[in-house]
Amino acid sequence: MDDIDRLVGIITERVKARLNGSGGHAGNAGGGATAAGRADSLRVMPREELRNTPCVDVPHEGCNDCGMCATRRPESVRAVQREGACRIGAGVDVGKVDLAMAGMIDHTLLKADATAADVRKLCEEARKYCFASVCVNSTNVAKAKAHLAGSGVIVCAVVGFPLGAMTPAAKAFEAREAVRCGASEIDMVINIGALKSRDYALVEDDIRRVVQASRPARVKVILETGSLNGEEKIIGITLSKIAGAHYVKTSTGFGPGGATVEDIALMRKLVGEEMGVKASGGVRTHEDAEKMRVAGADRIGASASVAIVGGADAPKQASKGY
Amino acid sequence: MDDIDRLVGIITERVKARLNGSGGHAGNAGGGATAAGRADSLRVMPREELRNTPCVDVPHEGCNDCGMCATRRPESVRAVQREGACRIGAGVDVGKVDLAMAGMIDHTLLKADATAADVRKLCEEARKYCFASVCVNSTNVAKAKAHLAGSGVIVCAVVGFPLGAMTPAAKAFEAREAVRCGASEIDMVINIGALKSRDYALVEDDIRRVVQASRPARVKVILETGSLNGEEKIIGITLSKIAGAHYVKTSTGFGPGGATVEDIALMRKLVGEEMGVKASGGVRTHEDAEKMRVAGADRIGASASVAIVGGADAPKQASKGY
Repeated sequence: MDDIDRLVGIITERVKARLNGSGGHAGNAGGGATAAGRADSLRVMPREELRNTPCVDVPHEGCNDCGMCATRRPESVRAVQREGACRIGAGVDVGKVDLAMAGMIDHTLLKADATAADVRKLCEEARKYCFASVCVNSTNVAKAKAHLAGSGVIVCAVVGFPLGAMTPAAKAFEAREAVRCGASEIDMVINIGALKSRDYALVEDDIRRVVQASRPARVKVILETGSLNGEEKIIGITLSKIAGAHYVKTSTGFGPGGATVEDIALMRKLVGEEMGVKASGGVRTHEDAEKMRVAGADRIGASASVAIVGGADAPKQASKGY
Repeated sequence: MDDIDRLVGIITERVKARLNGSGGHAGNAGGGATAAGRADSLRVMPREELRNTPCVDVPHEGCNDCGMCATRRPESVRAVQREGACRIGAGVDVGKVDLAMAGMIDHTLLKADATAADVRKLCEEARKYCFASVCVNSTNVAKAKAHLAGSGVIVCAVVGFPLGAMTPAAKAFEAREAVRCGASEIDMVINIGALKSRDYALVEDDIRRVVQASRPARVKVILETGSLNGEEKIIGITLSKIAGAHYVKTSTGFGPGGATVEDIALMRKLVGEEMGVKASGGVRTHEDAEKMRVAGADRIGASASVAIVGGADAPKQASKGY
């Protein structure tokens, strides 16, 4: 057991140092991760021996010993893994969550009356379930960025939302401002009126300016597919691609309709593998999300994200799927 | 009749000259105005004699002789009046329109999918019925300004619309951009989430920045009253006043609820006579608008404006009032 104690001590110090070095919240991070493995300075234990080694708790400051590091502190678990851990102890319920799906989800809160407390809760959920991002209005970007420090979850900001009817300069400014506040992704709404008026130059210029203003953040173009006919969808996707956007996305959730399998398939067909496709609007269950994934979506926008990934604390009314 | 012919000739030349001088659309203006009156260089006719003088048509280039100058070409009629006309001939239907009410109305089109043709129609209606303004999204401000040239109808642009959840800097930029494109009034949405989070400093700063960025345009603050409780309404009105806004306004039309008599009365009570009060959201008939006026509103936001003022070409389904 002496070897194991030394091993644990070394790993603990290395994890602490790495978390400090990466600018993460060292005070809170690394708590409770239970690991056994090898360290370069120690003898390499055979896998069989490792398997029989009991887990040892390494409680840290800020750790409440819940045993849920795998979902609540993914950054700590990854740090432990990088140091060579091949087994991670975990509490009950871990493994029931669809982490692969979680990594595709933009956890979304765009209501006009969202409070600071709502934004905090959103971020806590995103941290716990390892969602790809939280998607918020630009007024909440800085708050979300602060809440998510060290979590690996990024902030996505909507721009020109939900009508898409701002001037191109105002949309670009809003995007730049959101990036300055900490957004790594920008979800802009296309100029729907200009698309319907066949003013394609304006539509393309509008997207291009946001793409340029948002660098290095990625830009998703919301087409509001429920407002468009077949031709307008094709034209909107094409203009998004030539303007340099990184994703096309179906809906705002505030307009008519939402994501459909047909629209996702059309988007994937037209953009190929060069761009992302985000399904949003009406995606409320794991079944909905899975259909979108199969049709070609590699990102899902949802408010019912906890229910979608099968989280134990999802609201009951939203948990019919999975 | 020789005197009358001379008189008409002189007035015509003066009106032409004044319209040219004022930068109006001289080619189109002044058409069909039928006037008889006095001119300083002629003998002053007694009122009785004037009353018995037959109207004489003065068709101009661009005039289709419709006899509707009083509503379609108010700028021409005003020019004729300035030259001394005391009678204006007019076609059928003139006088049925409630012009006093029309002068209080912001004729509104804020749908995401509004096309260039929709904006043109909106402006034609505003010109015809002498509405106070057209209220549009910022992408349509320049178009509306061009359509309304010489009409006396101003352009009002919405900002941070309809969620009010942009950063203060982005909202202020959008407002400045709209003013640059030709807006004379800015209808901004208050930061509802900040108001509900009791972050009153942010709410006030947000309004103040838009007020400063919009000068010389006037700013209306949309409270989205249907989302607020009684205290929040009072606080929102107070913050709008201290931040230097020119109007408080009830609703976006995109959120819950709309203008109520109680909210308008509360607004008028709190702002006194120093600020304007605009009723918007769900005002669809002359009766609705009249109730708001009586409760204290001095501006009405509506899409069904033509029906409200009793215009003959209002859509049938919206014409139950007046």
